[in-house]
Parts: sequence; structure tokens; C-alpha cells
Amino acid sequence: MSNAHLIAQLDFLLELDKLKAILRRTRPAGMQRLENSAEHSWHVALMALLLAEHAEPAVDAERVMKILLLHDIVEIDADDTFLYDETGTLEKVAKEEAAAERIFGLLPAAQREAFTALWREYEDRVTPEGKFAYACDRLLPMLQNLANQGQSWLENGVRFEQVIRKNLPIKDAAPGLWDYVLPRLEAARAAGWLA
Amino acid sequence: MSNAHLIAQLDFLLELDKLKAILRRTRPAGMQRLENSAEHSWHVALMALLLAEHAEPAVDAERVMKILLLHDIVEIDADDTFLYDETGTLEKVAKEEAAAERIFGLLPAAQREAFTALWREYEDRVTPEGKFAYACDRLLPMLQNLANQGQSWLENGVRFEQVIRKNLPIKDAAPGLWDYVLPRLEAARAAGWLA
Repeated sequence: MSNAHLIAQLDFLLELDKLKAILRRTRPAGMQRLENSAEHSWHVALMALLLAEHAEPAVDAERVMKILLLHDIVEIDADDTFLYDETGTLEKVAKEEAAAERIFGLLPAAQREAFTALWREYEDRVTPEGKFAYACDRLLPMLQNLANQGQSWLENGVRFEQVIRKNLPIKDAAPGLWDYVLPRLEAARAAGWLA
Repeated sequence: MSNAHLIAQLDFLLELDKLKAILRRTRPAGMQRLENSAEHSWHVALMALLLAEHAEPAVDAERVMKILLLHDIVEIDADDTFLYDETGTLEKVAKEEAAAERIFGLLPAAQREAFTALWREYEDRVTPEGKFAYACDRLLPMLQNLANQGQSWLENGVRFEQVIRKNLPIKDAAPGLWDYVLPRLEAARAAGWLA
């Protein structure tokens, strides 16, 4: 294998450090600071392995993990967009496409294609793996909020109806997980943990 | 599937948040703060996928990823031990065993056994996957230091000979990666990036 091939891989690897500076709206349990997208990507990839048995139809858990390890990398250039931010969606898509082209473009050709395809599988939400990856990415911050007395919902003025609408794709990919979380969301509303 | 089964899985999932508070000695590129073990676990799991083709013998890249997603979870109870800290190794092993028992013990039985086995595969470094996972975990902070003018080496008084001795397992699992990094370590010594 040529040195140029390896050097391209290592350029990509070191570029990834930058995802550790991209902040989300959630605060990890017991911490004051905001969560970053790199530690979130670890958490949600492991979540997919943990909960894959709840996917309907069944999924290739390893592919879901790969999708989730890669799914937020475009935020290095495009930054994190809050789920409940309804503005600028078209602009977001264009920024993330450009980011994918630049960042995955650091890689040797075969890996550039493979990694871009995995990222697109998350964005497209057509395959069972893409849908389940998206469902995990929706469910995790809800569970964090339920454990956290609604921290990011309250800090950002998020209403119950928004949560239901935005997170309904969970029901499609893992109905058992939706059945579990729905009554807990209703209890959170009753407890005043939503705006 | 019973609700108790899912609740056990979610208890484990939320426990993982605590790994985001465990600090290492490395600072992510361009940042003043120390890296935490959750974001590191993401980085090194993705590294394994990226560089698996350099493993000799060949490895199951997906299993290496799973090993690396899990390998640092015991630090939630046992904290991070700096690689070059030569004291307290026996105590470290005992603390990590107890941590594995408690944390993986949150899971339903089948997953407890599967996750514990993956963690032990990292610790034992006997299988090609365990060895390559360990090699990635050694190589990543070296690459970060080489990109960072020796930041964690200099901050912690680490000498060239220590780096060579501690990181030699890379040569066994991925000789091409060792051949790449060795002359760069020698250049780092010449540049004064090691103590």
C-alpha cells in the first residue's frame, strides 16, 4: 500500500478531532457543560448495538453502528442544527452536502465512496438501517431529557407537540421503543418538563 | 420482550453518560481542554474501521469497532490510567474488574456476557481483533501528539524510550503502521517534543 494512501487516511483521522468542539443542546447527566457531537456519536453508536433487537424489521446492527459513527462528521463544517430549529432547512442540506464532499474527500477513493454512502443512508432514511440509526439518534436525547427533568426542552422552549411530531420516525423503525417512551413523554408534560 | 429487559438496557445506556466526565491527558487539536474518554472512544472506533486494512493478520473490523466502543467503559468507576504511569498496575486491574462487573452487570444476562467478552478481548490482547484494537488505542494519541508538537508527552515528562517500549504492540498487530510512525517519533525526539 502506498504511503500517500495511508497519509490520506491519517489526514481524515486527525480532521475528526474537530467534531469534539461542536456543541449540542444536551448536557450529560450531572454535568454543567453542553455535550459535544463526538461523545454523542460514541453514545448513540453503542446504543444501536445495545437496542438493535428492538428494530422492526430486523437490522444489521454493525452497519447501523458504522452509520452512527459517521453521521455527524459533516457538522465539522456545517455545525449542529437543533432538531427543533425549523428555519434554514434547505440551507442546512446544502451546507452538509458541501461538508461531506470536503471531509470525506480527504479519503482514498474507495473509502470516500463507502463512507459517503453510509452517511447518505442516515440522511435518506430509506433502508431499515438508515431508519433505525435515525430512530436511535432521536431517542437518545429524549431519554437524556427524561433523566434530566427536561433540561434541553426547557432551556430551548420545546413543546410536547413538537417532540411528538419530530420523533414519530421512532415508531416506524422500532415500535416497541416508541410504546415505551410515549407514556413517559406524557408524564414529562404533566410534570412541567416541556414548554 | 419484557419491559424489565428494556429498562435494564436503558439503565446501562444512561450510565454511559458518565464516561463523558472521565478525562485523559490529550487535548483535542486546537482546544485547551483535555479530551474525555467518550469522545476518544468514538475517535478510536472510527479509526479501526478506517485503518483495518493495515492489520496483519486480517481482522473483523466490525468486531474491533465494538471492542473499542466498549473498551473504556470501566473508567466510569476506575478512572483513566495514564499509559506511562508505572505505579499501581495490579490495583488498576482489580478496580477495572470490579467496574466491569458492576457496569456490565446492569445489562440483561446475554448482553452482559457478550459485552464483557468484548471488553476482555481488549484487555487480553490475544485475538487479532484484541491486538488490533489495542494497537489503534496506542497509535491514536501518538498521532495526536505528533500533530500537537508533543503536547501530552511534554506536559507529562514522557521520554522517547518509554514511547517506544509502550507502543511496540502496534508493530505486532499492524507492522505497516509502525513503520510509518517510527521515523516520525525519531523526528519528534529531534525536535524536542519528548522529555
